[in-house]
Amino acid sequence: MAPSARPSGRRSRIESLSNPLIKRMRLLREKRHRRAEGLFLAEGLRIATEARETGILPQWLFATEEGAAHPLARALIDAALAHGGEVIDTTPAILSKLSGKDNAQTVVGIYAEPALGLADLDRTAAPIWLVAERLRDPGNLGTMLRTGDAVGAGGLILLDDSTDPYGVEAVRASMGAIFTQKLVQTRWEEFHVWLRAGPGQLVATWLGDDTLDYQAARYEAPTFILIGNESQGLPSAYAAAADLRVKMPMMGKADSLNAAVAAAVMAYEVLNQRRGV
Amino acid sequence: MAPSARPSGRRSRIESLSNPLIKRMRLLREKRHRRAEGLFLAEGLRIATEARETGILPQWLFATEEGAAHPLARALIDAALAHGGEVIDTTPAILSKLSGKDNAQTVVGIYAEPALGLADLDRTAAPIWLVAERLRDPGNLGTMLRTGDAVGAGGLILLDDSTDPYGVEAVRASMGAIFTQKLVQTRWEEFHVWLRAGPGQLVATWLGDDTLDYQAARYEAPTFILIGNESQGLPSAYAAAADLRVKMPMMGKADSLNAAVAAAVMAYEVLNQRRGV
Repeated sequence: MAPSARPSGRRSRIESLSNPLIKRMRLLREKRHRRAEGLFLAEGLRIATEARETGILPQWLFATEEGAAHPLARALIDAALAHGGEVIDTTPAILSKLSGKDNAQTVVGIYAEPALGLADLDRTAAPIWLVAERLRDPGNLGTMLRTGDAVGAGGLILLDDSTDPYGVEAVRASMGAIFTQKLVQTRWEEFHVWLRAGPGQLVATWLGDDTLDYQAARYEAPTFILIGNESQGLPSAYAAAADLRVKMPMMGKADSLNAAVAAAVMAYEVLNQRRGV
Repeated sequence: MAPSARPSGRRSRIESLSNPLIKRMRLLREKRHRRAEGLFLAEGLRIATEARETGILPQWLFATEEGAAHPLARALIDAALAHGGEVIDTTPAILSKLSGKDNAQTVVGIYAEPALGLADLDRTAAPIWLVAERLRDPGNLGTMLRTGDAVGAGGLILLDDSTDPYGVEAVRASMGAIFTQKLVQTRWEEFHVWLRAGPGQLVATWLGDDTLDYQAARYEAPTFILIGNESQGLPSAYAAAADLRVKMPMMGKADSLNAAVAAAVMAYEVLNQRRGV
């Protein structure tokens, strides 16, 4: 990105859909443009405020007149400007175009993608880490981030060809946890080498044989909870490489849970064993 | 629906999108047509096979040549015909139109909506029941049905203005549990009167004061787990009417979980207390 394309602490007004900045930001709904720009889009005052409280401010902040008048938006605008961001007063129609929704939020922030690698993680900083393999559904991805925040996890490690965590739908489902959870996109081979170079218990949710009941297992921090692809589950080689293979009881006809649900049931069990209620 | 419009144990072939039956079945993607016909659409051999194993057969079954050749499809076709259903051999393009997806499944079944009321439920038949209030997201709804099946719940009671459980997206997310879980759509007032006319502990997931840790609470069967609207949570009057108000620990910045995740974490706790691992 050319230096001239960066914002710098000013406030402006845009009312035309054909404005070049609007055109550019609309492209962030596509993954290849997000990747090229290193930017992503988050809608709504609630998420932007969570980001601000974590010390993360938007590079661009778009707000309608109604949105800008909200007390939380005023704090956000001041902080964004002080941080060198650009605040753009605009129309509801333009915000709808940016977010791709009919009933758009009143603010939309454009943020830098952190682009962390495994080497950037301090695995001992949190007792739980979620690891998802070929996660396809952005709603499941965002929900896992949200659950990770709730259980005090450190972050989410996405293996192999998972859906883009910075897409609008995943960001929305994360309810702000996209800013509080560390996020690493890598491959199994690299993850496995990194994992074994330090402390950590790898626990696979597994539908095959050689499993423990998920409540009978004993978890050790940092616990890495490994969840497989929505329709195919984990490759057997990944399950075999885990320290524990565990299964939740299935009382009905189904033999599996939704991936985000399985991650949450597991993560709460690990948390519960730690807190010893 | 006129009696002449019912199928009756025959097999036919349709290759034109303008065929009147195809036009009629395509309309089932809209709620008002589902309601008028008392029918809904479920895609895929896996779901149709789960339905068959529960004794539920489609009134119409559409299959591509590839779909009809599968051994499970053959069993399904025989059962549907024996049960008075109509089997229609058709093209992938027509199946895509029926399901509204580009990569359609190879079979699509059209099923009668059960249309149960509270009076049809035997509350003592299962130890757990899920109750959702103004549930808006069809993916959450289907996921709750799937979780209900997994924990051995009796079914899902939908209160007030919830999304239609018979929409394509909810049926898909249920992974077949739409056929194994009882489903009742009613209003809070009616539910509350029915609940208090028999045994049952109403447990509200609640973010306000006067709550127990969800693991410190003791659950009694049948336990009715009450989950609130995705963005607003439960009305305080509903929470006040519950026997218990419980909260999951929240270790991060978030103060709530995804609705389907909250239902699952609660339901597994109730199940775990019962099985006493």
